[in-house]
Amino acid sequence: VAEPITFYFDFSSPYGYVAAQLIGPVAARYRRDVLWRPILLGAIFKSTGGRPLKELGLKWDYSRHELARTARRHNFPFVLPDPFPFAAVVASRAFYWLEATDPGRAAPFARAVFRAAFAEGRDMSLPIAVAAAAATVGIDDAALMGALDDQSWKDRLRAETDQALAHGVFGSPFFVVDGEKFWGAERLPEIDAWLASGGW
Amino acid sequence: VAEPITFYFDFSSPYGYVAAQLIGPVAARYRRDVLWRPILLGAIFKSTGGRPLKELGLKWDYSRHELARTARRHNFPFVLPDPFPFAAVVASRAFYWLEATDPGRAAPFARAVFRAAFAEGRDMSLPIAVAAAAATVGIDDAALMGALDDQSWKDRLRAETDQALAHGVFGSPFFVVDGEKFWGAERLPEIDAWLASGGW
Repeated sequence: VAEPITFYFDFSSPYGYVAAQLIGPVAARYRRDVLWRPILLGAIFKSTGGRPLKELGLKWDYSRHELARTARRHNFPFVLPDPFPFAAVVASRAFYWLEATDPGRAAPFARAVFRAAFAEGRDMSLPIAVAAAAATVGIDDAALMGALDDQSWKDRLRAETDQALAHGVFGSPFFVVDGEKFWGAERLPEIDAWLASGGW
Repeated sequence: VAEPITFYFDFSSPYGYVAAQLIGPVAARYRRDVLWRPILLGAIFKSTGGRPLKELGLKWDYSRHELARTARRHNFPFVLPDPFPFAAVVASRAFYWLEATDPGRAAPFARAVFRAAFAEGRDMSLPIAVAAAAATVGIDDAALMGALDDQSWKDRLRAETDQALAHGVFGSPFFVVDGEKFWGAERLPEIDAWLASGGW
């Protein structure tokens, strides 16, 4: 069986949202699973000196325009949530709890969180907003709220983020395909060509 | 007649070199000319706070790997020149002198400079290296050396860089297609799709 595509992202990353909209068909075309890996980009930026998109001046102006243009091209909704960026801690801990306890719902949950943030503009730093998004994909929202205070999911998120950094992840989205790294939603055509040809 | 594709780049930018290798067939497919626009990214970074690729830690590690991978995919040579980055002032001034005095040789000259830097590893900050690259595409190297001290080409390069910044250019390569901005060599498939469909 071929390895899954590892898909690192921060739930607060709009290009992460774009990648979440587009990775499914690419992976399915080559019969690859996607291993969803939410991380905290803020923690990574503390090590790398990276800065949030919104602070990047001309690059942020460009990105806002491009994000709307990409959504038009692929016909999915796009809004910036308020506040932006938001703390993705709650959604990310909930993801790892779900992956461990009800793994078939983890990816649908991740998609629901992205949708609530970037299609509906909700503040997904709030536990109640994350629970509401979870409920839309059949997850017991009370159980989710209970899991958020469990130290083990806090530790797990920190460990996943540390591990991503150790693997060289510096941005969101970030993909690893058969050991090869691809950064950015705009590299998906390159990933597609890589999978089609077996690499170069 | 359709507008040309404006192609902003710094001669010292390895992704600018990649774009220079790949833009020709894309433009030709849609019968577009390419307007080559060398600029000084260092001057732009003074305004934007941008930093050279080589100082970006994990992103630089990633980029070195990706640049070699992209060259393998498309079957062109790639080395990093020494020193890297290099001051692109001489090559850029020579480009604008040529564009004004022998316009048909300006793009071949730009390709020759990129080739000398990123296929042969030469130090293209040196006037003698720029003149040698120019000679390979039939340019009078003594005339080129003479033009380098002309204040008008110094002023022209500064004006082109200032104008690029005013248009929102923050990196290299950077394309403008029918008023739409596309940053990075990895957006060329997006540009291709845009030109094929007439936009979205």
